[in-house]
Amino acid sequence: MPTLMRKINILSRCEGIYRADKLKGTELCSCHHSYVLAICQNPGMSQDALAKHICVNKSGVARQIAYLEEKGYVERRENEHDKRTLCVYPTQKMLAVLPAVRKIVEDWNAYIAADLTEEELFKFREILEKVTDRAKNYVYNKDEANI
Amino acid sequence: MPTLMRKINILSRCEGIYRADKLKGTELCSCHHSYVLAICQNPGMSQDALAKHICVNKSGVARQIAYLEEKGYVERRENEHDKRTLCVYPTQKMLAVLPAVRKIVEDWNAYIAADLTEEELFKFREILEKVTDRAKNYVYNKDEANI
Repeated sequence: MPTLMRKINILSRCEGIYRADKLKGTELCSCHHSYVLAICQNPGMSQDALAKHICVNKSGVARQIAYLEEKGYVERRENEHDKRTLCVYPTQKMLAVLPAVRKIVEDWNAYIAADLTEEELFKFREILEKVTDRAKNYVYNKDEANI
Repeated sequence: MPTLMRKINILSRCEGIYRADKLKGTELCSCHHSYVLAICQNPGMSQDALAKHICVNKSGVARQIAYLEEKGYVERRENEHDKRTLCVYPTQKMLAVLPAVRKIVEDWNAYIAADLTEEELFKFREILEKVTDRAKNYVYNKDEANI
């Protein structure tokens, strides 16, 4: 029987292909939707907090933020109270693409859920909450995760 | 409310971080588990069929297969009946890492599902089947997917 994660990874990769199709010809690539959503919702978030929020390792986040800064989508500023912390702010250019990025994400969510009943959708959200909590627990508390 | 895909992508990324931890110091990176499992289970599969099976675009598969070939994990041979088709075979080196890769995948699946009841697990599989079918339908039949 295929594992749970095979299905989950396939879902994630199919959405990646869909997003790449929708973002073709722009400066944004498939993985940037998480950055646009997180940075616009949490302006001034530190790079480390952003990495934790989207569950990507710090070096990956640093690389993508450097790209987005170079293209004019974000600005990085030192934290007023802690100069070692870099905070990320969306520019007008990023805020301008937010509605389109949001629509791409919402359309896909509606598309994949179209065959589910209300009850299944409720159950799916409930179960996803439980398994995602376990998954995040590994990333946040590796030493105690015992796996 | 966070979208379904936010949870699904987080699950997928957390597993990516876990796999990277477990594969640290080897020649394999986090994304190679799908290749090891698919190629060992389907020796002689074409590159195009492999791309479809793991839902990654053809150029991505070509890049990873070239890497795995360079490191001695796979061999590519022309299809006897169709010389334009490249078929991928696992080497002894890939077959030797299969049990370890399988264990990494199985351990993570058991870890994330530990808080679910039997009934929830059954329901989760059933719902994942439905949404994954929708997602694959987009990738396989883009022209008809109407999204």
